[in-house]
Amino acid sequence: MYPRLFEMLFVSLHANSQCVMNIPSFESDYNNGAHPEVLRRLVETNPEQSASYGYDVWSESARTKIREACDCPEADIYFLVGGTQANATVIDAMLRPYQAVIAVETAHINVHESGAIEASGHKVIPLPSHEGRMEANDLRAYLHRFFADSTWEHMAVPGMVYVTMPTELGTIYNKEELEAIYDVCRECKMSLYVDGARLAYGLMAKGCDLDLSWLARHCDAFYIGGTKCGALCGEAVVFPKGAPQGFFPHVKAHGALLAKSRLAGVQFDALFTDGLYFCIGRHAIDMAMKLRDIFHSHGYELKPSPTNQQFVVLENAQMDELMKHVLFETWEPLDNTHTLCRFVTSWATTEEDLQVLSKALESVHS
Amino acid sequence: MYPRLFEMLFVSLHANSQCVMNIPSFESDYNNGAHPEVLRRLVETNPEQSASYGYDVWSESARTKIREACDCPEADIYFLVGGTQANATVIDAMLRPYQAVIAVETAHINVHESGAIEASGHKVIPLPSHEGRMEANDLRAYLHRFFADSTWEHMAVPGMVYVTMPTELGTIYNKEELEAIYDVCRECKMSLYVDGARLAYGLMAKGCDLDLSWLARHCDAFYIGGTKCGALCGEAVVFPKGAPQGFFPHVKAHGALLAKSRLAGVQFDALFTDGLYFCIGRHAIDMAMKLRDIFHSHGYELKPSPTNQQFVVLENAQMDELMKHVLFETWEPLDNTHTLCRFVTSWATTEEDLQVLSKALESVHS
Amino acid sequence: MYPRLFEMLFVSLHANSQCVMNIPSFESDYNNGAHPEVLRRLVETNPEQSASYGYDVWSESARTKIREACDCPEADIYFLVGGTQANATVIDAMLRPYQAVIAVETAHINVHESGAIEASGHKVIPLPSHEGRMEANDLRAYLHRFFADSTWEHMAVPGMVYVTMPTELGTIYNKEELEAIYDVCRECKMSLYVDGARLAYGLMAKGCDLDLSWLARHCDAFYIGGTKCGALCGEAVVFPKGAPQGFFPHVKAHGALLAKSRLAGVQFDALFTDGLYFCIGRHAIDMAMKLRDIFHSHGYELKPSPTNQQFVVLENAQMDELMKHVLFETWEPLDNTHTLCRFVTSWATTEEDLQVLSKALESVHS
Amino acid sequence: MYPRLFEMLFVSLHANSQCVMNIPSFESDYNNGAHPEVLRRLVETNPEQSASYGYDVWSESARTKIREACDCPEADIYFLVGGTQANATVIDAMLRPYQAVIAVETAHINVHESGAIEASGHKVIPLPSHEGRMEANDLRAYLHRFFADSTWEHMAVPGMVYVTMPTELGTIYNKEELEAIYDVCRECKMSLYVDGARLAYGLMAKGCDLDLSWLARHCDAFYIGGTKCGALCGEAVVFPKGAPQGFFPHVKAHGALLAKSRLAGVQFDALFTDGLYFCIGRHAIDMAMKLRDIFHSHGYELKPSPTNQQFVVLENAQMDELMKHVLFETWEPLDNTHTLCRFVTSWATTEEDLQVLSKALESVHS
Repeated sequence: MYPRLFEMLFVSLHANSQCVMNIPSFESDYNNGAHPEVLRRLVETNPEQSASYGYDVWSESARTKIREACDCPEADIYFLVGGTQANATVIDAMLRPYQAVIAVETAHINVHESGAIEASGHKVIPLPSHEGRMEANDLRAYLHRFFADSTWEHMAVPGMVYVTMPTELGTIYNKEELEAIYDVCRECKMSLYVDGARLAYGLMAKGCDLDLSWLARHCDAFYIGGTKCGALCGEAVVFPKGAPQGFFPHVKAHGALLAKSRLAGVQFDALFTDGLYFCIGRHAIDMAMKLRDIFHSHGYELKPSPTNQQFVVLENAQMDELMKHVLFETWEPLDNTHTLCRFVTSWATTEEDLQVLSKALESVHS
Repeated sequence: MYPRLFEMLFVSLHANSQCVMNIPSFESDYNNGAHPEVLRRLVETNPEQSASYGYDVWSESARTKIREACDCPEADIYFLVGGTQANATVIDAMLRPYQAVIAVETAHINVHESGAIEASGHKVIPLPSHEGRMEANDLRAYLHRFFADSTWEHMAVPGMVYVTMPTELGTIYNKEELEAIYDVCRECKMSLYVDGARLAYGLMAKGCDLDLSWLARHCDAFYIGGTKCGALCGEAVVFPKGAPQGFFPHVKAHGALLAKSRLAGVQFDALFTDGLYFCIGRHAIDMAMKLRDIFHSHGYELKPSPTNQQFVVLENAQMDELMKHVLFETWEPLDNTHTLCRFVTSWATTEEDLQVLSKALESVHS
Repeated sequence: MYPRLFEMLFVSLHANSQCVMNIPSFESDYNNGAHPEVLRRLVETNPEQSASYGYDVWSESARTKIREACDCPEADIYFLVGGTQANATVIDAMLRPYQAVIAVETAHINVHESGAIEASGHKVIPLPSHEGRMEANDLRAYLHRFFADSTWEHMAVPGMVYVTMPTELGTIYNKEELEAIYDVCRECKMSLYVDGARLAYGLMAKGCDLDLSWLARHCDAFYIGGTKCGALCGEAVVFPKGAPQGFFPHVKAHGALLAKSRLAGVQFDALFTDGLYFCIGRHAIDMAMKLRDIFHSHGYELKPSPTNQQFVVLENAQMDELMKHVLFETWEPLDNTHTLCRFVTSWATTEEDLQVLSKALESVHS
Repeated sequence: MYPRLFEMLFVSLHANSQCVMNIPSFESDYNNGAHPEVLRRLVETNPEQSASYGYDVWSESARTKIREACDCPEADIYFLVGGTQANATVIDAMLRPYQAVIAVETAHINVHESGAIEASGHKVIPLPSHEGRMEANDLRAYLHRFFADSTWEHMAVPGMVYVTMPTELGTIYNKEELEAIYDVCRECKMSLYVDGARLAYGLMAKGCDLDLSWLARHCDAFYIGGTKCGALCGEAVVFPKGAPQGFFPHVKAHGALLAKSRLAGVQFDALFTDGLYFCIGRHAIDMAMKLRDIFHSHGYELKPSPTNQQFVVLENAQMDELMKHVLFETWEPLDNTHTLCRFVTSWATTEEDLQVLSKALESVHS
C-alpha cells in the first residue's frame, strides 16, 4: 500500500488542481482574494512609480501606522511574503547557529512547514500542547530538567520560545498565560516570538484581553498576519525593541526580500487605515460564532474556540453528505466512523454561506 | 571613516524611504506597479474562491499556456515569488549538498543575493565575465584544470552552471554560445540553469535568435521573470524534463511556497494570454533603442546592449545635473570625474519619459 | 534560579576539569585510552610514511578485513572520527535537503547531539521509545498517518529511519524486530541506518541473534563504533550497497575528513585482526553480567539489559556513599529520594574494579 | 574526455591506495606518524582513566601551557581534530548567518575545503593573492568599494577576515603586514582569524618577527596546527579574548567534539612541554633551507619561501625521473614541458632524505 502512496509525493501538480469553487467554502482563510478595500488601494496606487525593497512610500506609511497601532514608536517592521518564510527568517536571525526553538507539538513550525526551521539549522523542541497552547509550567519544567541534566552541553540549547496567537486549534492566550511564558523566557535569557498568522481573528475573539500594544510589550518579535486576514500576501514582522543586527541582508539571504515592496506596503497600509484589519477580524469572528450556533442548533458539540477556526466531530456518512454542499477540511480521523472536521470563516464569509451550511445540516439529518 | 559607514548597515529603514517619484524613472524595471492588463485580471478574479498552494485554477491555466509557449508539454512549472528565492530554491534542489554552481563573476547570484546560495550550502565558483556572459571555453578550461588537479577531491565539486539571459550587463546569448555551454554541461554531467529575471527583454532584443521553445530544449531549468516584466511579483520556474523529486516540499522548506498561489497564477495567466509577455518585452526594447538614439544624438557612447538596460559614461557634473530631471542608477565610479550609469526601460516607459530625458540632455549640454 | 544556571552554559572549561581518576570508573566506555593491542599497532607503524586522506595502506587493509567480517565484498567503507560526526555526515548524504529522519525519542541524534542533524538541515521525527527500541508497528502507523494526511506536502517528508544497536538504554534488537523495520523502510523507499557506536557490545550480548554479515544485508548503512570499543577515536561507516555519490567530498565538506587517516586505519586494522573487536565486546559483556550479579546479590533490581550499560535505581543517600568508591553516572532523578544510575563496562573493566564495587555495596548496606 | 574524468569522482577508494612508501617523501607534512615524544606520552598515559569531552586532565594541562606560551591567561582554548573542521566551526561561530568571510583566492578555505565554509552557510569573498598573502590595501579597497556601493544591502556582508600563517605558498606575514590587516578589521568591526595549520613552521622561519604572544594580541582567533606539526591529529583553537558564547555546544553541533579528548589533550600537552612544538618547527625549517641549498647547487631557482614548503619549477622529463627516487607533489602545470612542484619538510625529514634527493638530482642531470 505504501509504495503507491509514496509515489503520490512526486505526482505532478495537474492532477489535483481544482476548479473554481461553486459552493461556499469554509475550507481555509486563504481561499479568497484580497479584501476589496485592499485591492482598491493596489489599483489606485498602481500608476505611481516608487522605490523598492522596502523603501517605497507605502511601506513607510504602513510602518508608521503599525507603530501607532502598537503604541511602539521604536519598533522595527519588515514585510515578508508568507508565514513559513517569516518564521524561518526571524527564528534564524534571533538564534545562534547551535540554538533551538521551543514550541508545542501542534505548532505550525513543528508540523506544517516541511522542516523549514530545521532547513536553516535549528531544532524544534516539542512541548505538550494544551488545545494548541503552551503552558508556562511545562516550559519551566522542561528548562529545569535541561539545566539539571549533567549532559546539557550535548543537547540542543533552547534560545527562543515560539507560540501562535491564536493557535492552530483556534484557541487563544490571555494576558496571564502569555505573561507567564514571557517571564520564563526573560529568566532564562531566551527570546519570545509570537506567530500571528491569524492575529486579527485572535485579537477580536470574545474573551481576548490583550491588544497589539500589550503584545508589543510582552514579546521580542511577532508578526501580524496579512495573507489569512485580507491581503493577497504579506506578513508584517514587528520587533518592538529593534530588529537583530543586519536583518535586511539576512532577509535577502533567506530569499525573502520583496523587490516590489509596494505590493506588501500598499496592502498593509490599507489594512491599518481606519481599522480595517480589526474589522476583518471582527466580521470573521461574528460569522464563526453564528456558525457555532448553527451547529449547536443541530445538536453538534464543537471544540471550544473563540476564533475563526471551528472544530466539530462528524459521523463519516454525514461528513460525506455535507461535503456536497459546502467545502471544509477533514482534520483528523478519530475512529472508523468519525472524523474531526474544521470549518473556517474569514472576512469573506457571508450570511448566505451560513444559510447554505444550515440548510445542508438539515438535509443531512433528515 | 569605515566604522561610520559600517554602522550604515544597521540604520533603520525610515531614513532612506523615498517619496513617490515625480520625475520619470529609468532607475530599474521594478519601480512600477503591474501592467494594467495583469492588474485587471487580479481584480476580475478576486471574488472567486480557489484552492491554494499552486492548486488554483489560474495557476493550472498559466502552466498550460507556458507549456504551450515553450512547446514542452511535459514541463513541470512552479511559481515562486522572487528571483533570489527562485535561484536559491532551484539550485539547492538540483545540487547534492557538497556541490557548487559555476557562474561568471558579475552574476547576480555571485554579487547581489547577499550570499543566499551559500546560505543554502553551496559555493559559487566565479569565472571571468565577458560583458556579463560566460564563454564555453572558459568553462571548459576550468573543468579541465579541475579534473586534472590531483587534489580535486578536496575542492568544491561543480554540479551546475548558472547563466543569466539577458545578463546583468544587458547583453544576450545567441544560440551558438548557449549551446556550446550546454554541450560542456552535458559532457560533464552538470545541469544548466538559466536565470531569466528579464527574459522578456532578452527574447525581444534585436539579434536574439532563440525563443522559449529552443531554450526549453537547451537547459535543465530556467525561470521566466515576472517581477521585472509586468507582474507585481512572481517568477515561473520551468523544468523542461521534469522537476527534481520532491520539489514541492523542497519549496516549502525554503519558505518559498505562496499560500494564495492565485496571486502568481492569475498574473502569469494574464502574461501568457495573447502574447502579453512578449508585447511587454518588445515595448521596453523599442523604448531602449530610442533611448540609445537620444544619447547618441547628444554625442554619448553607450555600451553595446540590445536589451532594456543601457549603460553610459557620464561626466559627474553632468550626471548630477541630469539627476534633477530623470531618475537613473549610478553603476560604477570609473575615475574621479566619470561614472558609469544605468538607464532601464520597461513596459511602463513612455514616449513622454524619453522626451523629458532628451530635453534634460539638451539642458545639460547648453 | 534559572539565569544563574543559564550562565553555566558559558562557563569556561577549567572549572569542571577532573583529575585523573583514582577510583574504578563505570562512568562511560570512553574514559579509557586505547586497547593495548590497538596502541601497540599505532606505535609499531609510526615510523612508516604513508599516503593520507584514506589512501594509506592500513585503511585499505582495515577495509578489506571489515568487508570480510561483513561478508560483503562490495561494501564501501569510510573511517570518520566520532559518532555525532558520522551520524550528521551520513544522514545528510543520504537525504534530500527537505527530507527528515525518523528515530525514537530517546535516540542519540534526538537528544545528545546538540542539534547536529538539524544543523545540516534535517528534522528528526520522534517515535515512542520501547526501552530504547523502535517498534515496526509504530513506524508503520506513523507513515500511515503521514500518507493519509491531506497536508503531507507541508510536512517534513521522512526519507530515512535511524536506529541504534545496541540502544542508548542498553537493549538490543533481534533479527525479527530489525527486519520488520527494514521491511517498512523498503516498502516506503526510505533508507535504514544503524548507529553502532557500541556495536561490539551489542553483537556479543547474550541473546543477540544477528551478526555483521546479517546486519550488512538488512540496512543501507551502519557504522561500527571504535571510540567506545577499544580505539582512541574512529567509527567505520559501512555502505553495504555502495556509498552515496560523491561521499568523499561530502565528508570533507562536513569537516570530517581525517588528514592522517592512518590514525583510524591502523586502529581498525588492529580491531579487525584476530577478532579483537569481538573479544573486546565479549569481555565487556562478561564484566557487565558479573556486575549485574553483584547488584542482584545485594538485593538490587536492574533494568533488563544484556549489554555493557546497566541501569539500577539507587536511594540517594546510598548513591552518594557509593560514589566515594566507584564512579558512575546519574541518569535521571526518579523522585525526591531515588535516582536511576548507569554503570558501564568496557574492554578495560577488571575483576578488581568489580571487587571494589562489591565491597562498596556491602559497606553502603552495613 | 570529461565524462570519464567525471566518473573518477565516484570511483571507490581501493584503486588509489598506496603502499607504504619506500623512498623518502617530501610530499606533505602529514605523511608521517606522530613525533616520537608525542607518541611516548600517548603510551604513557594510556592506562589512566580520565574525563572526556575536553574535561580530561591533559587537555587542561595543555590549555595552561598554551596560555603561558601565548602570554594570554584569559584565552579560551578548544582542541578540534582537523583544519577544515576548525575553520568551518570557528568561522560559523563568529559570523552571523548572512555574513561572509574575506580571504585571498589561494586560501585553503577558498580552494581546498570542498566548500565546507559555504556548507555552513557563509560566502568566501576572494581577494588577490600576493604569493599567498593578503595585502591590507586590497582589503581596504574592497571594503571601500563595498560601503560605497549603493547596493551593498544586497551583497554578502563581510564579517571576518581569514589569513593563513604561513600561507599555502610557503610565505609568511611580518608584524607590520598583519597589524595593518588587523587595523582594517577593527576599523570595520570585523574579526580577524588566523589559520595556523603550519604555525610551527611559520614561527620558526628565518625572518619571522612575530611570536605566539604577539599573535594573540593581534587577532580574534587563531589555531595552532598539530596535525602537520608532530601530532597524529588535532588543532588548538585559541580565542585570546574569550570564545563566542556557547562555543561548546556549537562544536558538538558541527560534529567536531572529540569524545576521548585525551587524544588531543595528551598530544598538545607534549607539544607544549619543553618547547617541543618549536623544536619541531625549527628542525623542519633547517631541513627546508638545506633542501633549498641542494636545489640551488644544482642550478634550480626556487620560489621565495622561508618555511617548510618549497616550490621549484621542473622540466617534465626531469620531474618524472626524480619521482623514481623521492616523493613530492606536482603543484601546477606551467606549460607543456614544465611543472611547478612542491617539496615539503617536517619534523620527520632526515639528513638521509636530503642526501637521497641530492643524489637523485645529480643523476637527473647527468
